[in-house]
Amino acid sequence: LINLEKVTIIGSGYWAFAFARILSDAGTEVTIFSIEQEVVKFFKENRQHPKFTEYTFSKNVSISDDKDVIKNALVLFWVIPAQLMKSAVQEYQNLFNPKQIFCILSKGIDIETDLTMSEILEKYGSIKPSNIAVLSGPNLASEIIERKPAATLIASSSLSTAKKIAQLCNSPYFVTFISDDVKGVEIAGDLKNVYAILAGLIQSLDFGYNTFSAVLTRALKEMILIGDVLGAKTETFYGLAGLGDLITTASSPNSRNHTLGYKIGEIIKSKQNLNIKELLASSLGVAEGYYTTKAAYEISKKNHLDTPLLNCIYEILFQNAKPYQTLVNLLDQKISFE
Amino acid sequence: LINLEKVTIIGSGYWAFAFARILSDAGTEVTIFSIEQEVVKFFKENRQHPKFTEYTFSKNVSISDDKDVIKNALVLFWVIPAQLMKSAVQEYQNLFNPKQIFCILSKGIDIETDLTMSEILEKYGSIKPSNIAVLSGPNLASEIIERKPAATLIASSSLSTAKKIAQLCNSPYFVTFISDDVKGVEIAGDLKNVYAILAGLIQSLDFGYNTFSAVLTRALKEMILIGDVLGAKTETFYGLAGLGDLITTASSPNSRNHTLGYKIGEIIKSKQNLNIKELLASSLGVAEGYYTTKAAYEISKKNHLDTPLLNCIYEILFQNAKPYQTLVNLLDQKISFE
Repeated sequence: LINLEKVTIIGSGYWAFAFARILSDAGTEVTIFSIEQEVVKFFKENRQHPKFTEYTFSKNVSISDDKDVIKNALVLFWVIPAQLMKSAVQEYQNLFNPKQIFCILSKGIDIETDLTMSEILEKYGSIKPSNIAVLSGPNLASEIIERKPAATLIASSSLSTAKKIAQLCNSPYFVTFISDDVKGVEIAGDLKNVYAILAGLIQSLDFGYNTFSAVLTRALKEMILIGDVLGAKTETFYGLAGLGDLITTASSPNSRNHTLGYKIGEIIKSKQNLNIKELLASSLGVAEGYYTTKAAYEISKKNHLDTPLLNCIYEILFQNAKPYQTLVNLLDQKISFE
Repeated sequence: LINLEKVTIIGSGYWAFAFARILSDAGTEVTIFSIEQEVVKFFKENRQHPKFTEYTFSKNVSISDDKDVIKNALVLFWVIPAQLMKSAVQEYQNLFNPKQIFCILSKGIDIETDLTMSEILEKYGSIKPSNIAVLSGPNLASEIIERKPAATLIASSSLSTAKKIAQLCNSPYFVTFISDDVKGVEIAGDLKNVYAILAGLIQSLDFGYNTFSAVLTRALKEMILIGDVLGAKTETFYGLAGLGDLITTASSPNSRNHTLGYKIGEIIKSKQNLNIKELLASSLGVAEGYYTTKAAYEISKKNHLDTPLLNCIYEILFQNAKPYQTLVNLLDQKISFE
């Protein structure tokens, strides 16, 4: 069996398929590697994902459960949940070669090791940084798959690697920018989930645009403070992977983190007892922002950072603070220099 | 007649009355100076503005058409349309004294002279900069008057002036921050209107959150480039009066600038002929962003700034460019460093 595919996406979810469509619209042939038999079978028969059959994919997109599509790929796009990344990298590590480029679309930090996704690839896949890129921006899969215009940022310590990825996916509705701040892009993509929880909460409590905008503005300042401790560049937070992603994630009712905050608000309004653990267990999928809140709070505390919004979310999620009162306390501030 | 009022608001509109409520909630007695007889009469009888009778004001708020309330005020808040500022300052100039503090809530640039509102006060009112403050942030009057939480920025070349104003209006739902960048606050408040037009346009064309967030992120970069030429501080654009106000104005369907853009989109979608002049004449009130677009475009061109979004709006408003095609062209970019 000779496998000619050169670009492979690892993942079977919405974002994996939306991104496959970007690549195929950019003229790139792509194979989706999926271990979900049902998805593979359905796609082979219908050129559709079984869960969103309204989208039919072009011939540029194929699917396979054969690991050779990992082995033979020149570029591997990783679009799996963050917490599955470590085991996947360990499992497929013997298929990698030094010429391959790895582009990460997964967002989050590995809870067990506190490593970012690029660090997981470096450590467990023995991949050198110049062969790693991360892609992030205000990119809701549900809009991308409808070909609504979006922009994204691709970062790599090697700008030629970043450019290569950008060329592969630059399409009429997907504008690509490049950067060398891998760390900043990863940290921003992770931290924004914390504030998306808060945005969901204030939205469910009907606080209005003024509160929303003030919270996002102050949130960005906090993200920069935390990112600075972790070695991220400030300018990255002002760009697509920082501010851009923050606005989209905090605005859209489709994100898990926003939904978590929104549900907390609904529970308060209905005067029910708030039990965060129960809420997390009952909601669909993992809200990465829950774990990130804890990690970020510890960093903030250790470094004496001024992060009242983060503290507010932490107290609500981990210290049984009453959400409404905690938010009101947040406003009771002394006049300070911006 | 002995007039004991010390704080006076000049203006009769929604924002003037919403701000009066902030002051009274902060424990400050305030007199609204209005030359609109109907408003004065109605308020005296009902403690309400005739156009929004759902809000009744406390005894802390009084109203007057007597110019003595300008003369005797220690602090004067200016909440009139920007294009009326020059003639008002000229008319009342003989009532001013060197101890008065002037705080400007009006936003916009005087079209005739290209001066900012603080420059108008300096030039036509002979007020020294240390007695002038500007107040700006994500502060939709419609939400403020409902006492929904908001934050604002008060800037003055004299920080003690800024603090004085902050103390007057710092209330449980109105958090105040201070700054010394008067120019930056004014320029940001003016420029954001340009991008609110674009936001309204893309929203009416149903482009989605991804486009919206990318546009705001890139808009902020352009605002900083233009502001830099005009002597504004970059950091101001990242704060409440920049980013914060931009998000609110671009999100809310209530702003005139957003409405202008939205209507342009509606006209395109209905395949009617787009006539900007007619549209401006038919819409309610002045969309300041229309004039600002022209002024900002000239600054950008003269200084060779990279402002593709501004250029796009300019072409649509002043050069009969086809909006949809112009937006699509905007996306057709080479890969560039963020």
